[in-house]
Amino acid sequence: MNTQHTLTVHTQSHDYPIFITASGDCRAFTEQSAQDNALAALDLATPIVPYIKGRQVLIVTNDLIAPLYLKGLQERLAQAGFDVRACVLPDGEQFKNQDSINAIYDALMQAHFARDCTLVALGGGVIGDMTGFAAASFMRGVNFIQVPTTLLAQVDSSVGGKTGINHALGKNMIGAFWQPVAVLADMATFATLPPREFAAGMAEVIKYALIMDAEFLAWLENHADKILAKDGETLAQMVHRCCDYKAQIVAADERESGKRALLNFGHTFGHVIETHQGYGAWLHGEAVAAGMVQALVMSYKLGLISLDDVRRVVALIERFELPVQPPKIAVDEALSLMGHDKKVQQGKIRLVLLRALGDAFVTADFDMAILNEVLTSVSDVLSEKNDV
Amino acid sequence: MNTQHTLTVHTQSHDYPIFITASGDCRAFTEQSAQDNALAALDLATPIVPYIKGRQVLIVTNDLIAPLYLKGLQERLAQAGFDVRACVLPDGEQFKNQDSINAIYDALMQAHFARDCTLVALGGGVIGDMTGFAAASFMRGVNFIQVPTTLLAQVDSSVGGKTGINHALGKNMIGAFWQPVAVLADMATFATLPPREFAAGMAEVIKYALIMDAEFLAWLENHADKILAKDGETLAQMVHRCCDYKAQIVAADERESGKRALLNFGHTFGHVIETHQGYGAWLHGEAVAAGMVQALVMSYKLGLISLDDVRRVVALIERFELPVQPPKIAVDEALSLMGHDKKVQQGKIRLVLLRALGDAFVTADFDMAILNEVLTSVSDVLSEKNDV
Repeated sequence: MNTQHTLTVHTQSHDYPIFITASGDCRAFTEQSAQDNALAALDLATPIVPYIKGRQVLIVTNDLIAPLYLKGLQERLAQAGFDVRACVLPDGEQFKNQDSINAIYDALMQAHFARDCTLVALGGGVIGDMTGFAAASFMRGVNFIQVPTTLLAQVDSSVGGKTGINHALGKNMIGAFWQPVAVLADMATFATLPPREFAAGMAEVIKYALIMDAEFLAWLENHADKILAKDGETLAQMVHRCCDYKAQIVAADERESGKRALLNFGHTFGHVIETHQGYGAWLHGEAVAAGMVQALVMSYKLGLISLDDVRRVVALIERFELPVQPPKIAVDEALSLMGHDKKVQQGKIRLVLLRALGDAFVTADFDMAILNEVLTSVSDVLSEKNDV
Repeated sequence: MNTQHTLTVHTQSHDYPIFITASGDCRAFTEQSAQDNALAALDLATPIVPYIKGRQVLIVTNDLIAPLYLKGLQERLAQAGFDVRACVLPDGEQFKNQDSINAIYDALMQAHFARDCTLVALGGGVIGDMTGFAAASFMRGVNFIQVPTTLLAQVDSSVGGKTGINHALGKNMIGAFWQPVAVLADMATFATLPPREFAAGMAEVIKYALIMDAEFLAWLENHADKILAKDGETLAQMVHRCCDYKAQIVAADERESGKRALLNFGHTFGHVIETHQGYGAWLHGEAVAAGMVQALVMSYKLGLISLDDVRRVVALIERFELPVQPPKIAVDEALSLMGHDKKVQQGKIRLVLLRALGDAFVTADFDMAILNEVLTSVSDVLSEKNDV
């Protein structure tokens, strides 16, 4: 099987392609030898070579991904004639900070990289965000290619041009809008992706269905078995659809004044969970999953959607082994954490809610008592499903 | 006297005004009481108020400028209803680094600044560059106003959208293109500008004449007395013309692929001086002055301009008490420092040279032996003027 979908993303600065490929075996390997063979055969270089400007390439990755994919990519690019360096950062959201960005700058400066160099992000969303911000700010902007190796990064951070790092007092507070020149999403990288990370990515996939397209929600329900079995073509279709949804939103609104805010569905609640638990304790997608349930329950309590709608989505989220309830967080603390949220304008809390499955909107006009209820607990609503 | 020139700068993202005013006394004060009165009367707030978005304002300045202008600006903005904070950084190019940017981020985060906040840069080019980069990267980009208080910043860094900081291994290596929403250049701030800083700014003024307009060179020669006497209307005309030259270049070429490179006249040589001497030992404008003489001598040795041309410019540079010769730097070291220069593409050294006074071009096609001669010394050519 060697499937390839190509999607063109339109942005203010330029258009760029996303190549969605299933060039190898996408199933998780239990035998080391099978994994080694698959990794040796995987070619992540050829599709991106036409997009490398100049001769100097820095691959930025982390210490989890480097043993899997770095050597193969580095060797193939070197064979293609490039001067290839690598910057291997420690893995984890807690390293999405200025120190890591400085390590990238140092690698670029020490190797005398010029303005026509290219940075390649090889890894998940953290690596993509940091590499993108380094590319945006090195010499006021250099060429940048994404090779996302997690489902989350493929369907979320590889489209839209958001790059950045965390500040000690808030997530993603420092960054830039900077578009890649190409993205390569190969389903074969899921073979080495831990199941918990794959599930976390599914949270964002479900999000697109909820905010954009009820038909896609049905598609996910119908294809859940194939997705869980890591069928390459099914995964490629799924990733393609998600990138397409996001590309539509981003093309309409590159600077997040309007429609782009819908992508934050589940995220304002999710950020509370992530910040309260400390970065890394909950995966981003896990926090988003529980956050989406909070947003669904809120929409239900406001009379916007039915209990059946909530029930249906909760079942799908559970099918992909994602959490449907947040940890216990005091309401005052949650509200205070929402007040620090960068999605807040003029001190008012703005939430993304659903009018119907597949139809989201942003509002700051809701009963604070309902928000308090939701922040206190969603288990009253979730347990109602057993009562029926 | 209350003169105001307004220039509109066109950029890819938006247009913005530069207000060039002479709202007070521009002469240097010898008496403290006279200075105190002038500072109390100076209103830097009113022209910028219409450009402040939201309610939250952070003024970024340094410990030299703060005692002069911060209190007046802060009070006037507070009276106009804004929530005004200040971030006072240590003065000097050696603090144009990540630590200072982090101090700005910390101030913004601790005061819970939102995406609709405004940053005001109050100071010279270093403050402007750092504040601009912080504005470009805080929440992926917020509103930014420049109030340049040095001649150099008024004629150079306040137009063009270049922002950034230094890396330990190179000047201005980290940054972004980010345009202000308004610039206020008040000639009255020259009353407190040290003579050496004023002279350094004149280096960039002379640069515009050399690369853009021989007629402006004659204007500077004819108005040198008034400029040195700090005549407000003359200074405003001069700043207006420089901003206009730069705005023309920037509008034609926002991303420095072509014409904008002409602005680097004298800068490749100048960067060698600055880097060799350590940031801060030579002022940027002083290094540019000596660097321009090197570029003039190179142009002369290549048969492009006459010895009279060199002589005429050297006389003007000396009139404004700027250095015309670089410090002693070994040629190998100078070439190596040029190799690190970010203006170098593919390892080739590119220089801005003159075809005639007022007519510059970029070239990588020159005899390296001549560059070696120029880097060894320019005193052979400068002393020829005494032989004639």
